[in-house]
Amino acid sequence: MRYNLNESLALLAHTPASLDALLRGLPDAWTRRGEGEGTWTVRDVIAHLAELERTDWMPRVRRLLKDGETRAFDPVDRQAFVRNARGKSLTRLLGEFVRRREKNLQEVRALRLGRAELARRGLHPSLGTVTLAELTAAWAVHDLTHLHQISRILAVQYREAVGPWERYLGVLQCRGHSAPG
Amino acid sequence: MRYNLNESLALLAHTPASLDALLRGLPDAWTRRGEGEGTWTVRDVIAHLAELERTDWMPRVRRLLKDGETRAFDPVDRQAFVRNARGKSLTRLLGEFVRRREKNLQEVRALRLGRAELARRGLHPSLGTVTLAELTAAWAVHDLTHLHQISRILAVQYREAVGPWERYLGVLQCRGHSAPG
Repeated sequence: MRYNLNESLALLAHTPASLDALLRGLPDAWTRRGEGEGTWTVRDVIAHLAELERTDWMPRVRRLLKDGETRAFDPVDRQAFVRNARGKSLTRLLGEFVRRREKNLQEVRALRLGRAELARRGLHPSLGTVTLAELTAAWAVHDLTHLHQISRILAVQYREAVGPWERYLGVLQCRGHSAPG
Repeated sequence: MRYNLNESLALLAHTPASLDALLRGLPDAWTRRGEGEGTWTVRDVIAHLAELERTDWMPRVRRLLKDGETRAFDPVDRQAFVRNARGKSLTRLLGEFVRRREKNLQEVRALRLGRAELARRGLHPSLGTVTLAELTAAWAVHDLTHLHQISRILAVQYREAVGPWERYLGVLQCRGHSAPG
């Protein structure tokens, strides 16, 4: 497979608007609860996406281009978003995510990354050597992982409401696929 | 849990715009393939959603209100969408889904369904007795099931591109949760 950066950037440009259209103004019944004790609400997921847009993906792109494999990326602080999202509404967090993504895409496009840059290597703190192509592809699929999660969090709110349909609705069979950050 | 029809209608009003924002204009690399032999592409999923908007959900609402449990719903023809979607672009199918949903929501709202109507019963061809509340809730969660599926179909296209990140991206661990229609 020939990796094409523009495909990743296209997806990264579409997901914020898609999540905004799905969630903005949705009744609280859908968004105020998670999937059970200690799990994320939809608001938590958007806060996490908005946080990583500031602290993770672009800083990693810059670190890789500047330091190569000589200096590892900073690990993701998977609790930072809880502090930073305190008191912010889902609507406000969606706005932060949309704006930060737009800014990051402008920055990436301005870098005019070609095949040589995409093959350059950096050091992930737990995964080891990764290429810039892999980093930008993972950024896009990270959006999809959280879209997957959000569809499930929403569906779980209606597990009882759908009555006997529960067995036919695939999303209600999903138990999640959590992995360390 | 007190079932609130307006919550279902709100979700049903949001999902078409969300899918449209996600998929319209996305490069073919994301949308032309499924998850392997015999699986659905993103276009197939949207064709299925557009088809059921015409042949399934509203006709079932009408049948339940008219005939109660005396006459079962027609079974879903899970292949009809293949015939009806032949030659149509993803963009065109998204438009059909958006327009049919809008029309259906207008019709449902015009019925002014109250608690008495929502408790009324109909007959599902394989699930047996269901209430109108369950039918409308299942309609909403059916959207979420396919959003869940679409996030996975898209992600699978990048399984190799993300390199070592594969193990961290939950959506790539999902093997689907298909069930009979």
